[in-house]
Amino acid sequence: MSTIKHLINGEFVTDTGRTADVFNPSTGEAIHKVPLASRATVQQAIDAAKAAFPAWRNTPPGKRAQVMFRFKQLLEANEARIAQMISEEHGKTLEDAAGELKRGIENVEYASAAPEILKGEYSRNVGPNIDAWSDFQPLGVVAGITPFNFPAMVPLWMYPLAIACGNCFILKPSERDPSSTLLIAELLNQAGLPKGVLNVVHGDKEAVDALIEAPEVKALSFVGSTPIAEYIYAEGTKRGKRVQALGGAKNHAVLMPDADLDNAVSALMGAAYGSCGERCMAISVAVCVGDQVADALVAKLVPQIKALKIGAGTSCGLDMGPLVTSQHLDKVSGYVADGENAGAQLVVDGRGLQIAGNEGGFFLGGCLFDHVTPDMRIYKEEIFGPVLCIVRVNSLEEAMQLINDHEYGNGTCIFTRDGEAARLFCDEIEVGMVGVNVPLPVPVAYHSFGGWKRSLFGDLHAYGPDGVRFYTRRKAITQRWPQRASHEASQFAFPSL
Amino acid sequence: MSTIKHLINGEFVTDTGRTADVFNPSTGEAIHKVPLASRATVQQAIDAAKAAFPAWRNTPPGKRAQVMFRFKQLLEANEARIAQMISEEHGKTLEDAAGELKRGIENVEYASAAPEILKGEYSRNVGPNIDAWSDFQPLGVVAGITPFNFPAMVPLWMYPLAIACGNCFILKPSERDPSSTLLIAELLNQAGLPKGVLNVVHGDKEAVDALIEAPEVKALSFVGSTPIAEYIYAEGTKRGKRVQALGGAKNHAVLMPDADLDNAVSALMGAAYGSCGERCMAISVAVCVGDQVADALVAKLVPQIKALKIGAGTSCGLDMGPLVTSQHLDKVSGYVADGENAGAQLVVDGRGLQIAGNEGGFFLGGCLFDHVTPDMRIYKEEIFGPVLCIVRVNSLEEAMQLINDHEYGNGTCIFTRDGEAARLFCDEIEVGMVGVNVPLPVPVAYHSFGGWKRSLFGDLHAYGPDGVRFYTRRKAITQRWPQRASHEASQFAFPSL
Amino acid sequence: MSTIKHLINGEFVTDTGRTADVFNPSTGEAIHKVPLASRATVQQAIDAAKAAFPAWRNTPPGKRAQVMFRFKQLLEANEARIAQMISEEHGKTLEDAAGELKRGIENVEYASAAPEILKGEYSRNVGPNIDAWSDFQPLGVVAGITPFNFPAMVPLWMYPLAIACGNCFILKPSERDPSSTLLIAELLNQAGLPKGVLNVVHGDKEAVDALIEAPEVKALSFVGSTPIAEYIYAEGTKRGKRVQALGGAKNHAVLMPDADLDNAVSALMGAAYGSCGERCMAISVAVCVGDQVADALVAKLVPQIKALKIGAGTSCGLDMGPLVTSQHLDKVSGYVADGENAGAQLVVDGRGLQIAGNEGGFFLGGCLFDHVTPDMRIYKEEIFGPVLCIVRVNSLEEAMQLINDHEYGNGTCIFTRDGEAARLFCDEIEVGMVGVNVPLPVPVAYHSFGGWKRSLFGDLHAYGPDGVRFYTRRKAITQRWPQRASHEASQFAFPSL
Amino acid sequence: MSTIKHLINGEFVTDTGRTADVFNPSTGEAIHKVPLASRATVQQAIDAAKAAFPAWRNTPPGKRAQVMFRFKQLLEANEARIAQMISEEHGKTLEDAAGELKRGIENVEYASAAPEILKGEYSRNVGPNIDAWSDFQPLGVVAGITPFNFPAMVPLWMYPLAIACGNCFILKPSERDPSSTLLIAELLNQAGLPKGVLNVVHGDKEAVDALIEAPEVKALSFVGSTPIAEYIYAEGTKRGKRVQALGGAKNHAVLMPDADLDNAVSALMGAAYGSCGERCMAISVAVCVGDQVADALVAKLVPQIKALKIGAGTSCGLDMGPLVTSQHLDKVSGYVADGENAGAQLVVDGRGLQIAGNEGGFFLGGCLFDHVTPDMRIYKEEIFGPVLCIVRVNSLEEAMQLINDHEYGNGTCIFTRDGEAARLFCDEIEVGMVGVNVPLPVPVAYHSFGGWKRSLFGDLHAYGPDGVRFYTRRKAITQRWPQRASHEASQFAFPSL
Repeated sequence: MSTIKHLINGEFVTDTGRTADVFNPSTGEAIHKVPLASRATVQQAIDAAKAAFPAWRNTPPGKRAQVMFRFKQLLEANEARIAQMISEEHGKTLEDAAGELKRGIENVEYASAAPEILKGEYSRNVGPNIDAWSDFQPLGVVAGITPFNFPAMVPLWMYPLAIACGNCFILKPSERDPSSTLLIAELLNQAGLPKGVLNVVHGDKEAVDALIEAPEVKALSFVGSTPIAEYIYAEGTKRGKRVQALGGAKNHAVLMPDADLDNAVSALMGAAYGSCGERCMAISVAVCVGDQVADALVAKLVPQIKALKIGAGTSCGLDMGPLVTSQHLDKVSGYVADGENAGAQLVVDGRGLQIAGNEGGFFLGGCLFDHVTPDMRIYKEEIFGPVLCIVRVNSLEEAMQLINDHEYGNGTCIFTRDGEAARLFCDEIEVGMVGVNVPLPVPVAYHSFGGWKRSLFGDLHAYGPDGVRFYTRRKAITQRWPQRASHEASQFAFPSL
Repeated sequence: MSTIKHLINGEFVTDTGRTADVFNPSTGEAIHKVPLASRATVQQAIDAAKAAFPAWRNTPPGKRAQVMFRFKQLLEANEARIAQMISEEHGKTLEDAAGELKRGIENVEYASAAPEILKGEYSRNVGPNIDAWSDFQPLGVVAGITPFNFPAMVPLWMYPLAIACGNCFILKPSERDPSSTLLIAELLNQAGLPKGVLNVVHGDKEAVDALIEAPEVKALSFVGSTPIAEYIYAEGTKRGKRVQALGGAKNHAVLMPDADLDNAVSALMGAAYGSCGERCMAISVAVCVGDQVADALVAKLVPQIKALKIGAGTSCGLDMGPLVTSQHLDKVSGYVADGENAGAQLVVDGRGLQIAGNEGGFFLGGCLFDHVTPDMRIYKEEIFGPVLCIVRVNSLEEAMQLINDHEYGNGTCIFTRDGEAARLFCDEIEVGMVGVNVPLPVPVAYHSFGGWKRSLFGDLHAYGPDGVRFYTRRKAITQRWPQRASHEASQFAFPSL
Repeated sequence: MSTIKHLINGEFVTDTGRTADVFNPSTGEAIHKVPLASRATVQQAIDAAKAAFPAWRNTPPGKRAQVMFRFKQLLEANEARIAQMISEEHGKTLEDAAGELKRGIENVEYASAAPEILKGEYSRNVGPNIDAWSDFQPLGVVAGITPFNFPAMVPLWMYPLAIACGNCFILKPSERDPSSTLLIAELLNQAGLPKGVLNVVHGDKEAVDALIEAPEVKALSFVGSTPIAEYIYAEGTKRGKRVQALGGAKNHAVLMPDADLDNAVSALMGAAYGSCGERCMAISVAVCVGDQVADALVAKLVPQIKALKIGAGTSCGLDMGPLVTSQHLDKVSGYVADGENAGAQLVVDGRGLQIAGNEGGFFLGGCLFDHVTPDMRIYKEEIFGPVLCIVRVNSLEEAMQLINDHEYGNGTCIFTRDGEAARLFCDEIEVGMVGVNVPLPVPVAYHSFGGWKRSLFGDLHAYGPDGVRFYTRRKAITQRWPQRASHEASQFAFPSL
Repeated sequence: MSTIKHLINGEFVTDTGRTADVFNPSTGEAIHKVPLASRATVQQAIDAAKAAFPAWRNTPPGKRAQVMFRFKQLLEANEARIAQMISEEHGKTLEDAAGELKRGIENVEYASAAPEILKGEYSRNVGPNIDAWSDFQPLGVVAGITPFNFPAMVPLWMYPLAIACGNCFILKPSERDPSSTLLIAELLNQAGLPKGVLNVVHGDKEAVDALIEAPEVKALSFVGSTPIAEYIYAEGTKRGKRVQALGGAKNHAVLMPDADLDNAVSALMGAAYGSCGERCMAISVAVCVGDQVADALVAKLVPQIKALKIGAGTSCGLDMGPLVTSQHLDKVSGYVADGENAGAQLVVDGRGLQIAGNEGGFFLGGCLFDHVTPDMRIYKEEIFGPVLCIVRVNSLEEAMQLINDHEYGNGTCIFTRDGEAARLFCDEIEVGMVGVNVPLPVPVAYHSFGGWKRSLFGDLHAYGPDGVRFYTRRKAITQRWPQRASHEASQFAFPSL
């Protein structure tokens, strides 16, 4: 059982302290050990990043972009290897792993447009012979803390853009599936990144706290659960850092009576059960407007849920793999029991699934609840498993009120052909990412990702234009040159240009 | 002695609780009482704002802009009256008061471009027949807490833009000089703002804490001292709010050997002594590169400082009025004594100034220290008075190191004719607002205002483009319409568009 | 009968040459004489504009904007007087005249955002210590030639923006209804515009040719018929000028089977008969998808067309006034006859209308043709009168093919509730301005106006962001400063930064 | 001697008509034949492009960008081969050829940001429940006509961006050095471009006229001499096309008394003699402010000009190769004689240069004229050879007047340390591309390239943001959905939203 290494200052670094096991959730076996960095190790990474900053900051954005162009090539060349690693440690299918990598690469593409996206604004003659412009300069050392569910994509939301903006980066990936993350980071170094600009440190709360407390770390990007997001936002901002902390979700899909139901069912199947629902953009609630839609939906879903092809993620042609850990399997199963007890109708029960040859794996079949009500725990909390809840309402307005009343506001979507319904929904729903007939409205890399309410803490969303603003600080310059022949009087009053 | 009122839901509201005195600093006499709002009064304002939000949010930006066009007209029509009010309660000269109002009006002009500045980004075909766009929606109820030194301008940095973006606003202005602030707010109501969209509540820490703690308040803008800025940033963010908190400053002007010294002296006189130095962008340190520059600078400054025309702000043709309060006069005088004790050379001592006919006023003449060193309190701390410190260095690099080592990073400027020096300075100085031969590089309203380091807590600067982003939340919409003839398969893998 | 004057260099100027009569189309009587400028008079205006340019160019955009803010106020204060003038000479109703003025004022508002819309782009470090930025500088003297149908709005599309960008302007308005245009121009002078920055010269082809041929005129904006647009584009560009020339239109409305027919009928009535159809965005063809829609449409339209309230434009509460001239009345009536002869079904015949008390007026009632086919002249040509043609098709695809095959591509709209249909239409229709349930999709002032195909000649559309680009020339600056200590070798190869 | 082929619809196509010889200017020998396309061949290319358009237009920009990413890789992989081809047919040095390719690749990088640079603007609620946005759609078939002097770079200014915007392209490269251009186009096909999207047709005036006259060709980009630029602009626009036609230049460098002369001399040597001065951005006039600067400049230039390493471009380590053709050698030599006759002082005479082993090559040594005056032909006309003219003036103002009076306005630069001089120069010089201590201020790919006055005909500059606007047409959409419960009255007056 090999031990994974940190990547600090361009070198793989062995740690001598605490470790954790990394499992293959399809077999239930521990396959690697991952070190849990001490504060000293984190500081080593910070020191490397700090040392690399002055030269990297002064590297023209167009040159920094060249590294991103090469990084994209290397990622594409290593797609199969990366997908295999993701699947082995996370459990998601190979196709799903390749899919997340692809979306991650789109962020590398966006970062390769560094000279374009870093442009400031220039104003000639803000006053007589006075010019002004804005410049977006890097912050220095910034850090990212990323979750298990997208070991490739979520880190790629962060560091390519941060680095293209001229920062140096410390990444603390999830300790549950760190191998693909580490390989990807190493590929960026191979692409020509100067040493120390990107550093990967594995760890747990000790490492996180070290990053929060280090005065050299100027900004923190986090994706994970809401309690931790809130903790990091409060602790980071208390120390004067800028923080964007993305948390939990409970994403509703509204099905209108005029929805194209066959397509909506296809969409929902993927959005609810893909990656076992372990996605912050997964659809976990289907809100049906009218019983007719609900009944038809259930009728179409049940056979498809029962037909889900489930197995070891690293096999081909599957729909779902296992959940990520044994603990998480227990937790999700607990929610299913809780929903039954609360009176929801468990239409499909995925518990007790055994996969031949993978008996130790953390498998759970797709579950479907009907007649779920807003007071139930399975409605209020994020389950993060292959469990879809159907709530029945009488109108679009009622559906929207339900969504607006929920504490989370990450993603949502509506299935309809009707322009008026779609426009009303897009306009007034209090959710940051909205799909119209798009079940997982993850914005493309040149827009930005972020939820509202308790799904995101911070002013600026992740990646895209907001990401650029997050990873830079604005400098405003106002300039005039002395005119040879003029002597100006003192101006004691507040100046207008 | 009249009692000032709150402005809540379009009505002037009397409060029955605690009050504070408002002084005329030119005479030393209390001239008004100002109520200090209880939590209940603050909540009344929040309720009014919340009730006004749905309709205001849905008012098209172009219509919201019309209110700002009329507001600008009313402000211009009332300039003299507003300047008089500012001068009476703050002490600054009438010309200075008119100057700050003018810069405030520029922010109203920027807000009147609401339809332009609120544009989102639209992408056709992010995937086949899939479109995406971003929409910048208002936050709801937001609040601003503003300082005594710019009772007209700083509130106008905040609420015109916040309101033009569709928010409803609670303003808690300084309790030391609230009259002009209140009049200006009333003019916005006269301009046709629906009631409840803007509310003004006077108060102290109780009111501030009520705003911080109210869950309805989604964002806080603050300008004041660094300890309070830090408190509000930490307390506000801890509650999940977005906060921009602007704090203290120690703004250095660098004089290069090739500076046009006559113009630099004129510039410095205004920037150091205008408004008694009670400006967060005032120049309080002149860094001379070489003794020759320093000696010449002192020789030129001394007679001008001694010739400063000082008197009651409401008189005409003056350079300086009094400090804002008796306590502040004592504090600034204490810094002068401290500088002397620490070994700085007090070249001009403005203490003990008596203005005939205004013997009770809080006057202090201009003070000049030479041979100040970085370890002295007068160098390290913000004095916020008419005290200029000269520090002597040997090179531009040394000057820049000094500035970069200071805890504040609000504004700075360089006096030179040399393109290389100016460019190096603009690029590498760790300060948010930089002037080249411009002593007070306050960005124009269509750029944004903000310092670095401990001068600003938050991601986004005040007013201008950053202000728009601060007062809005990004919504990302991804849309496709079902194609009549197509049935799509479920996609379990993470989708690429 | 008074003679209208030119407005040159801030003065009203009498001309001694040729004149034309200006009629009141509601009475058929000549009410003014308008001078037709000689080449010498045009040159006088050009000379004034050229002389005013250097100072105006150097006036900061923020100061130029102040003139626009005041202009807006004056326009609003004079709305009734302007509307009366428009109605008297053009014949449109007072409400319609006020409506066009309002849209014109929106362009003044956009121009008042000059400092924002003139921002260039700034890039630090395009190479080591090399910066680059863009600056959008005014062209110098530019000219506009505007049509009779919007004597207030179309000139306001042009010169406020051109002038806010720093240019000086010569306007040649329509000689048929010049009074309101002249008054509006005079109001801009009253708003504080320096003399010579805006000049108004009345005239005909001689004046137009003088503007085309003058080397001092750097750009021409034209709105009128396609043959003249084409002439001006060819002649202007041949002389190296930049030209945007907007010509004719044949705007189709597509009615889908799911359209909200009552609202669509209301929309069509205004869009087809408002201002007697003398609008380049008027709907002149209704394309019905299916006979059912067509039959229902005709049934609903007929009584409404017959009920149109028609009279002297200056009366209140009317739907339509007269056509602009006796000749135009004959021309439109000729098209009605031609349609009948070609076999179209004339469902409502508006010819022979007499308005009691206004027997000399150029009146024509609303006309409706059904069963129009693409080969008929009434389909192929722009009628510019109150004549609506119904074409019947079997599918959206057929409707779109019809529109895409027409030589014009100015505006179009679709009536539907269906998102898929609307999206397909917006995406693939070869028309510059598209409405979804919006019959006159004239873009708001902060977007830009322009048709495709033979409706516009030029790269850039009118007003809005394209207008800014049209009235400015891009300057690209690349800057570095010599580094004191370095000596650089010659680089004979093509440099990469 | 091989015959070069056309590249039409993804295939190499042999032509049977007229041909021209392609020479190696270093040896004077014809090395290839190039076909001169007939109208029929051009039409074949147009037909292919037209057929490819619908599918390419509908390919999402993000997918189109993928082709550009791969194209960049292939160009980098083939750099040496391409440089060799350029050098062989054009004569420039290998390093110079590699340099132009690199700048060309930067345009491919910019095109790979297609999804970012194609974003339109979105406005919610331009009126109640009415939204508006802009979409930038491709034009269809567009064409480019490119000069001999940059066979790699100038075509890469055009078609990557045009194609990334969704257009299909016909390129007619220079018939003097077509091989590298063809190879590069073939590499784009290898990168995955669908057949027909890019087509290369060799030819002369017949091919050019066929492109001008073809109604399917919607836009023309041209780079070459001013007479041809003017012809293409007039003929293209006359047919309603959009045209950007870049012509000649006479680029002045101003040397101020405070210039860092050693660096300026290095810069001038490269800018005047690099590529034998056959660059539209070459410096051909040095304007010295004061005789002292002029004398020092001459003293430093003479030995360097005499030391220029000249030889066959394909050799390594050279400064200059031959001129492009025998005719051009004669023409440039004629200018040198003309300058002598006109009284300019010929300080260095490069005529009669023989390169051992390359006696047949079209070589000319560097030439330097002093005391050139504005009335001389060598000052007024573009020589396009290794001839630098020194003009002596007394002030910056005089230098600027000289430049502003010249008919061309492509590029210019100033050598100074002084901020005031640089700012004045940048602001008021009537030239499109300005360098401050940068001798060849060719804008980076994310800004745009274009001269003023008779150096460019058209509204929009080449590549960068202007290139995007040139290769797209703006569509403005205004949308509202019928509200279920509302019936709207007809609005006959002009609508305000």
